[in-house]
Amino acid sequence: MIKYSSAYTDLAVEAHQMISEERGKELPGVSVETEEHSYDFVTRVKVTTEEGAKLIGKSIGNYITIDAPKLRNHDRIIDKEIGKTVARELTSMNHLHEDATILVVGLGNWNATPDALGPRVVDQVLVTRHLHNYAPELKGGTRPLCTIAPGVLGITGIETGEIIKGIVDKIKPNLVIAVDALAASSIERIGTTIQMADSGISPGSGVGNKRMGINEKSIGVPVIAIGVPTVVHAATIAFNTLNAIIESSSETHREEIKKDADKIYEKAIPKDDGSLFVTPKDIDVLIKDISRIIAGSINTAYQPDVDLKDMMTYLN
Amino acid sequence: MIKYSSAYTDLAVEAHQMISEERGKELPGVSVETEEHSYDFVTRVKVTTEEGAKLIGKSIGNYITIDAPKLRNHDRIIDKEIGKTVARELTSMNHLHEDATILVVGLGNWNATPDALGPRVVDQVLVTRHLHNYAPELKGGTRPLCTIAPGVLGITGIETGEIIKGIVDKIKPNLVIAVDALAASSIERIGTTIQMADSGISPGSGVGNKRMGINEKSIGVPVIAIGVPTVVHAATIAFNTLNAIIESSSETHREEIKKDADKIYEKAIPKDDGSLFVTPKDIDVLIKDISRIIAGSINTAYQPDVDLKDMMTYLN
Amino acid sequence: MIKYSSAYTDLAVEAHQMISEERGKELPGVSVETEEHSYDFVTRVKVTTEEGAKLIGKSIGNYITIDAPKLRNHDRIIDKEIGKTVARELTSMNHLHEDATILVVGLGNWNATPDALGPRVVDQVLVTRHLHNYAPELKGGTRPLCTIAPGVLGITGIETGEIIKGIVDKIKPNLVIAVDALAASSIERIGTTIQMADSGISPGSGVGNKRMGINEKSIGVPVIAIGVPTVVHAATIAFNTLNAIIESSSETHREEIKKDADKIYEKAIPKDDGSLFVTPKDIDVLIKDISRIIAGSINTAYQPDVDLKDMMTYLN
Amino acid sequence: MIKYSSAYTDLAVEAHQMISEERGKELPGVSVETEEHSYDFVTRVKVTTEEGAKLIGKSIGNYITIDAPKLRNHDRIIDKEIGKTVARELTSMNHLHEDATILVVGLGNWNATPDALGPRVVDQVLVTRHLHNYAPELKGGTRPLCTIAPGVLGITGIETGEIIKGIVDKIKPNLVIAVDALAASSIERIGTTIQMADSGISPGSGVGNKRMGINEKSIGVPVIAIGVPTVVHAATIAFNTLNAIIESSSETHREEIKKDADKIYEKAIPKDDGSLFVTPKDIDVLIKDISRIIAGSINTAYQPDVDLKDMMTYLN
Repeated sequence: MIKYSSAYTDLAVEAHQMISEERGKELPGVSVETEEHSYDFVTRVKVTTEEGAKLIGKSIGNYITIDAPKLRNHDRIIDKEIGKTVARELTSMNHLHEDATILVVGLGNWNATPDALGPRVVDQVLVTRHLHNYAPELKGGTRPLCTIAPGVLGITGIETGEIIKGIVDKIKPNLVIAVDALAASSIERIGTTIQMADSGISPGSGVGNKRMGINEKSIGVPVIAIGVPTVVHAATIAFNTLNAIIESSSETHREEIKKDADKIYEKAIPKDDGSLFVTPKDIDVLIKDISRIIAGSINTAYQPDVDLKDMMTYLN
Repeated sequence: MIKYSSAYTDLAVEAHQMISEERGKELPGVSVETEEHSYDFVTRVKVTTEEGAKLIGKSIGNYITIDAPKLRNHDRIIDKEIGKTVARELTSMNHLHEDATILVVGLGNWNATPDALGPRVVDQVLVTRHLHNYAPELKGGTRPLCTIAPGVLGITGIETGEIIKGIVDKIKPNLVIAVDALAASSIERIGTTIQMADSGISPGSGVGNKRMGINEKSIGVPVIAIGVPTVVHAATIAFNTLNAIIESSSETHREEIKKDADKIYEKAIPKDDGSLFVTPKDIDVLIKDISRIIAGSINTAYQPDVDLKDMMTYLN
Repeated sequence: MIKYSSAYTDLAVEAHQMISEERGKELPGVSVETEEHSYDFVTRVKVTTEEGAKLIGKSIGNYITIDAPKLRNHDRIIDKEIGKTVARELTSMNHLHEDATILVVGLGNWNATPDALGPRVVDQVLVTRHLHNYAPELKGGTRPLCTIAPGVLGITGIETGEIIKGIVDKIKPNLVIAVDALAASSIERIGTTIQMADSGISPGSGVGNKRMGINEKSIGVPVIAIGVPTVVHAATIAFNTLNAIIESSSETHREEIKKDADKIYEKAIPKDDGSLFVTPKDIDVLIKDISRIIAGSINTAYQPDVDLKDMMTYLN
Repeated sequence: MIKYSSAYTDLAVEAHQMISEERGKELPGVSVETEEHSYDFVTRVKVTTEEGAKLIGKSIGNYITIDAPKLRNHDRIIDKEIGKTVARELTSMNHLHEDATILVVGLGNWNATPDALGPRVVDQVLVTRHLHNYAPELKGGTRPLCTIAPGVLGITGIETGEIIKGIVDKIKPNLVIAVDALAASSIERIGTTIQMADSGISPGSGVGNKRMGINEKSIGVPVIAIGVPTVVHAATIAFNTLNAIIESSSETHREEIKKDADKIYEKAIPKDDGSLFVTPKDIDVLIKDISRIIAGSINTAYQPDVDLKDMMTYLN
């Protein structure tokens, strides 16, 4: 049984909000800044100390979140604007020299639509590393970029982290971009929030629950994780319902409900071990659209010497 | 907003149970029989009158449900035994002459794993109708069987029912088998229950919410619907949580909670219009295994003159 | 055994060239015009009499061929220009009223890459018919357009023509666009030639060898066929080799070789029944690029009230 | 331009036959043995010296070829028998201890059907290594087996060999099985021949033309390559035609044809750089059937403590 002391989230911005509301005060070792644009809203969460990391359950690092409810509109013009914000934020996270090699890793299970974001993104980024090695006359002004979709443990029998570490050791990229489908605690964030983090991927996060972390410490090169919530844990719905009832109840009743919480959860989601997810019916359209935006943003961010307009239209 | 007077289900057996428990008595126009086997449990719900149909919200007809929790074990030997039960029940539902033409329709969206059951089944049934027409020397002892996966409205822009009716009018099959992914009200039924119904598919049912019914009346030939729950509506989790709290509350609190129900749902699943589903993380494995069983059962049931052992191993 | 009196081609422009060279004079009932653009070369073959049709083995009708060797460059800018030519030619072929319903049919086998052009195109055209029927507030200035990828006989057991006729009878479109992968006689035309024909699809043509024609006569509404060669019959290579040797041989040797032709073919391609195809190794990239261009052209041609730039970028 | 001094083949058995016929005598450093069964014919080519290796253009090692024309029948009973032969030969090639870890590599491009054999095989082998590491109670009597489909250079930008070497260095398997689609010189061998070689994969072989070899020397662990021809080079058809004409020609004419060979090839297959392949129309069915047999054979060969019948039916 998983515990329901709080709704699970892979997003630093949600974790920070939940914990700071719970405690009713600012959290030491965590800072938050926001910035609004026409189509999106950027939040920068900095986790600067181990204390802050422990408090919100996210590693030390920078978490940039782009909230863009209009991603739901499936409007190409708006999608491009949001893609430009993503590209700009990505660019700001690292200072790469112009020949830096980049490895884009598409995490997740290509056979399960809600977990297929990463593999779909790597299908669409501009792959150029082989041109640098075998056909330099075609490389143009590109950086060498390569990709891998390592699959999931149940498909390969190999930890995703082992595959990536093995490849990184061989090809020695200067930066790894790891794209993954995430779980949020808020349903409205499904398909409308994009998180970028220089702390990489933590063990146990993402739809597929990685066992090994994928971060600078574990694989030896800087890692930027790009994630988009595609699911909410089913338990979060039960948690939200219970909380909504508690809020509207008298003090006595509250205590009764809290006391019975475990029994209530067991009736609402029998035997749930955290593997039940809420996802929208049109998840296929969502994955198709968001993967195009992320891939276009990666192209724009890491291939600056190629005409921006072309790169953004490359996948639009 | 969808209403939460009861948890939604496509299964007659669940609808019957919920309504009869609610009313605390037997339902007129609905009869239920059960039968236990080694690996499965068969329930036969007969809806015989319009009154009964209205009561449980399912059309007049026969609904055979096979409950097989061991489908979760992914054990080939057990899967085969359950497949044999499915085949036997299918055979009992119609008396087809030996040259009867069968059209197997795989409903649902092949791009969204939880809705892809139907298309995956038609990928695996033994297609023979073309042999009868163009290569009779190869037809063996088979019946002419053909298939179509018509896609969903969002993919084609055409109502699934229109496509099927058009094809049925041209090729005039004696029986249509319509395979679809369903929504149950109980999480434990995901991937462990198989329903067969001679009333066809009702409008608004299934993961993809068909707008047009697919049944003898609408398309002119008998229709057997085979469905397996692959999802539960997210609203059902909220409903279950609320109910569990109500059950453990005093009379006064109950009334308060019921009064606030709409507000509570809105907090638990904001703006839900019935398009949020709960589905397990390993939905890809579930769809792969169940589609093989359903396809094997269809082969066994409708190609009786081909050696049973071969047909069941055909897809095992 | 197929016969090798000439290399097989689905292209009217090749058939015309071969036959007129063979006969050394203009062909009655067939006229040809050409037009050159920056990136492509348009040839208009008109077959106006039954005599002409018999001579070149293509039905009476208009065949517009766009030759664009630069399609091989995979350059987005050039691809767009060629796409515009395709769109302009499509528009010129019919006069559709502004509410005309269009059905785009993607012929071919999605499981075999060289035959998957049609299904990939329908995956990418803008589907709007359901908006007109169910959500008119979202239809914008679009025409109602719907799609179907009917599969192939070996997959469904149903003739493609039967499926299309059935759907056409139900939804009564004003125009059918049928997209298909073709066989050319010239290897250089693979992936570089686009043919549009108002005579529809002939029986026996295309990679998948349709048994039933799909044309105005057989289905009751005008049909425009869009085809791109993705293969050359293997027999054509043997035919070309034999011809090249004959050309460079003395009169005596020529006669000997011609006499032995059947034996030579049997050694070169033993037991070939026309089901062996030559296709390039990078057929996946070719299908991906060309399907995007065809889909973009269909969007541009049939949705004239939607901003052209958006439609062309829709899939670019 | 590729050269046509002989038809290209990845099969040692064909290379041996061609060269020994050409030279009209036995080849030093190469031995050949054959063995006939009910449904297949096994040929064992041993290349024992560098001289032999150079003569037939294949590395030193053992090449076991199973010829089974009945694979074309798509008969499940026969397919199983042939699968058993493959399993037996695989078992005979290595002596693995009972806890040996095996990595099955599916080479080739999953987006191009004729090159998708390897990826399809790894989709179907029984993956167990993760059970050994994370759920030993479920591992049963299995050996730890894991898989990877590394993609092709054009998809990832990374040499296949680099990916495999990286993973092998991390997980240190005792044996690598590399499955690949091959090019034969004989059309009849497409889909009917299975080659197993303990020399691994040579650079430049396979449909996808690997640049780096995958063998014990390059990756540090024993490698068994399993390959099935799915294509013939288009140039081979021209070569065969030319040869058939030469054979039936007088001495003078022969010399003329040989002199003009380059011009003839250029007319038959203009600008061919070896990337044009001949493949059958039903390549999708072929890949589906053969991949099931290879996967079943790998299961049987490397999981000897699991009931044979179950393993062979696992994918049948």
